[in-house]
Amino acid sequence: MKLLVVGSVALDSIHTPFGEVNDALGGSAVYFSVAASLLSGVRVVGVVGKDYPMDQLESLAGRGVDFSGVEQAAGESFRWKGKYSFDLSSRETLETRLGVFADFRPQIPTAFRDTPFVFLGNIHPELQLNVLDQIRSPRLVACDTMNYWIDGARDRLFEVLRRVDLLIVNDEEIRQLAEDWNVHRACRRVLTMGPRRVVVKRGEHGALLVEPGHSFYCPAWPLEEVFDPTGAGDSFAGGFLGYLARTGDSSSAGLRRAMIWGAAMGSFAVARFGIGGFEGVTPAEVQQRVRSFRDLTHVELAEALP
Amino acid sequence: MKLLVVGSVALDSIHTPFGEVNDALGGSAVYFSVAASLLSGVRVVGVVGKDYPMDQLESLAGRGVDFSGVEQAAGESFRWKGKYSFDLSSRETLETRLGVFADFRPQIPTAFRDTPFVFLGNIHPELQLNVLDQIRSPRLVACDTMNYWIDGARDRLFEVLRRVDLLIVNDEEIRQLAEDWNVHRACRRVLTMGPRRVVVKRGEHGALLVEPGHSFYCPAWPLEEVFDPTGAGDSFAGGFLGYLARTGDSSSAGLRRAMIWGAAMGSFAVARFGIGGFEGVTPAEVQQRVRSFRDLTHVELAEALP
Repeated sequence: MKLLVVGSVALDSIHTPFGEVNDALGGSAVYFSVAASLLSGVRVVGVVGKDYPMDQLESLAGRGVDFSGVEQAAGESFRWKGKYSFDLSSRETLETRLGVFADFRPQIPTAFRDTPFVFLGNIHPELQLNVLDQIRSPRLVACDTMNYWIDGARDRLFEVLRRVDLLIVNDEEIRQLAEDWNVHRACRRVLTMGPRRVVVKRGEHGALLVEPGHSFYCPAWPLEEVFDPTGAGDSFAGGFLGYLARTGDSSSAGLRRAMIWGAAMGSFAVARFGIGGFEGVTPAEVQQRVRSFRDLTHVELAEALP
Repeated sequence: MKLLVVGSVALDSIHTPFGEVNDALGGSAVYFSVAASLLSGVRVVGVVGKDYPMDQLESLAGRGVDFSGVEQAAGESFRWKGKYSFDLSSRETLETRLGVFADFRPQIPTAFRDTPFVFLGNIHPELQLNVLDQIRSPRLVACDTMNYWIDGARDRLFEVLRRVDLLIVNDEEIRQLAEDWNVHRACRRVLTMGPRRVVVKRGEHGALLVEPGHSFYCPAWPLEEVFDPTGAGDSFAGGFLGYLARTGDSSSAGLRRAMIWGAAMGSFAVARFGIGGFEGVTPAEVQQRVRSFRDLTHVELAEALP
C-alpha cells in the first residue's frame, strides 16, 4: 500500500438532466480511492455514521482499497445533495448535512503512518496539519482545499502549504488563494508559498501543471456523453497520485504522465452516476484511454518556417 | 499573395481595467490580416467610411497586406465600443454603429479572384455566398459566423457551410449552430453539414480542431499579462490560415501545426491594446513562441504500465 488519502466519505444525492440517485457512495476520499485503486493500493482515513452502507464500502476492498482507517461514529453520515443545470455546466447545492464529519479528527492508524504518497483531501487546514504531524517521512504530500477554508482559515492553510509538495485545486480556488484573477500568475505566487508544484483542475477544459519555469497543459478527454460531473476532480487527483504511487516517479516527466492518467480517470468518472463510472473498468481500459491522449495532443512542430 | 480575407474593417473604442483607446484600427479583417501577414501576403476586401484613417491602414501595407480591395464609401465607418470586466473574462458592448458596413456588398477585385486560401469573416451568410460565387477554384475556404446569423439567417448559413472546407467559431456559436450544448457532439454534427474540419476557439482555454474520427487540442499560451482580449480570435484565425497559405499543407498534421501558429498569434494580440500587440513583432519571435508550445504540451507516454 503506497497511497494514503484522508478526506470525506459521504452519501450523495445527485440530480442531473439524465436522472437521479439518492444516498449513493460519494465523498472526495471515495472517488479518489476508487480511481487510484486502478493503479495502486490505497489506504483511506475518514469517518462515517452508523447509517453508512458499510457493505458497499467494503465491496470496494476487492479493488485494493483498505478502509480500516474509516471510523464508524455515533450519528449520521455526511450527506450532500446537488442539482446540475441542463448542460451540466453549473450545479446548485440543495443540502449539506455534515453529520459526524463535523467532528472528524483523523487518527492515522499506526500501520498507515509510513505510507510514502499522501493526499490530504479537502478538510479543515487544522486537521490537515494534524495529519502531517502523524505521518512519517512521506515521499510526496499533495493537498486539496476549498473557498471555505481559503476564506476562513487562511493562516492555518498557509501553514499547510509550507509543509506540502503539491497543491491540487480548481481555477477559482487558486485565484482566491493567491488573490489574483490570472491563473498563471496565481500559480507562480503559490509556488513561493511552499509547494514545488501546483495542479489546477479546469473541468471540461483540462488541467494545468505548474512548476518553477514550466507549465504543462493537459486537455480533458473530448467526451460526447457526460452523465454526472460529481467527483471528476477527485477522480483526477486519484489517477494522478495513483500513477505517482505506482511508478514512484515524481520527476517533471513523471508528473506530466500522471496528469494524463488523472484526466483519463476523470473521463471515466463522469460517464455514469456516482462511482458507477468505474464499474467494471480495468487498468487496461484506462491505459487505452491514456494512449488515445497522444492523438489528442500530438503535433510535430517544424524547426524552421518553410 | 496567397490569402484573401473578406470582413469588417472598423474603429474600436476599448475600455479595459488597464486603460482605454478610442477609434483604434480594428475589425476582424484587420486583426486577421495583421496576424496572417507575419506568414503570408494577404488581400483584404472590406468597406470603410470617409472618416477612416487610411494612412494608418496603408501603413500596414508594408507588412505585405494589400488593402486595395477596401472600398471607401460615403458615410461613417463601422464603430464598436466595448468595456471589459475587471478580470477580462466578460465584456459589455456599449455601442455598435454599423455605418457603411450595413450596406457592404463585397466586390472581389479581378486580381484577387484566384487567391488559393480564403477566409470569409463574420458577415451576412448571403454576402459570404456572394463571395463564394466570385472566387475561382480556391484550395481551401474557411468561414466564421456569429449568433446573430445563426439565429436570423440559418438557412443561408447552412448553404454557406455546404460550400466551405472549414468552420472557425467559438464555443457558444458551435453549440447554437448544432443545437447541442456538448461541444464535441456539436462539432461532429457540423462535420455532417459540409465542412470537413471544425475549429472551436475557446479563449484562455485554447482551441479545438475536429476532423472525422480525430480531435486535436491546442492550449492557449499561459499569459501572465493580458491587456486587451479584443481580436484574439481573429488573430488566431489569421495565424492559422496564414500558416496554411504559407506552407500549402492542409493535411491533418499541417492543420495541427497551423493551430499552434494561431494560438501563438492570439497570445501576441492580447498583450497590448488593439493591433498594438503585433507592433515590432517578427516572424522569428512568433516562431520562438510556437517552439515554446512544445514544452507546454509535451508528454512522453509509456507503452505499458510499470
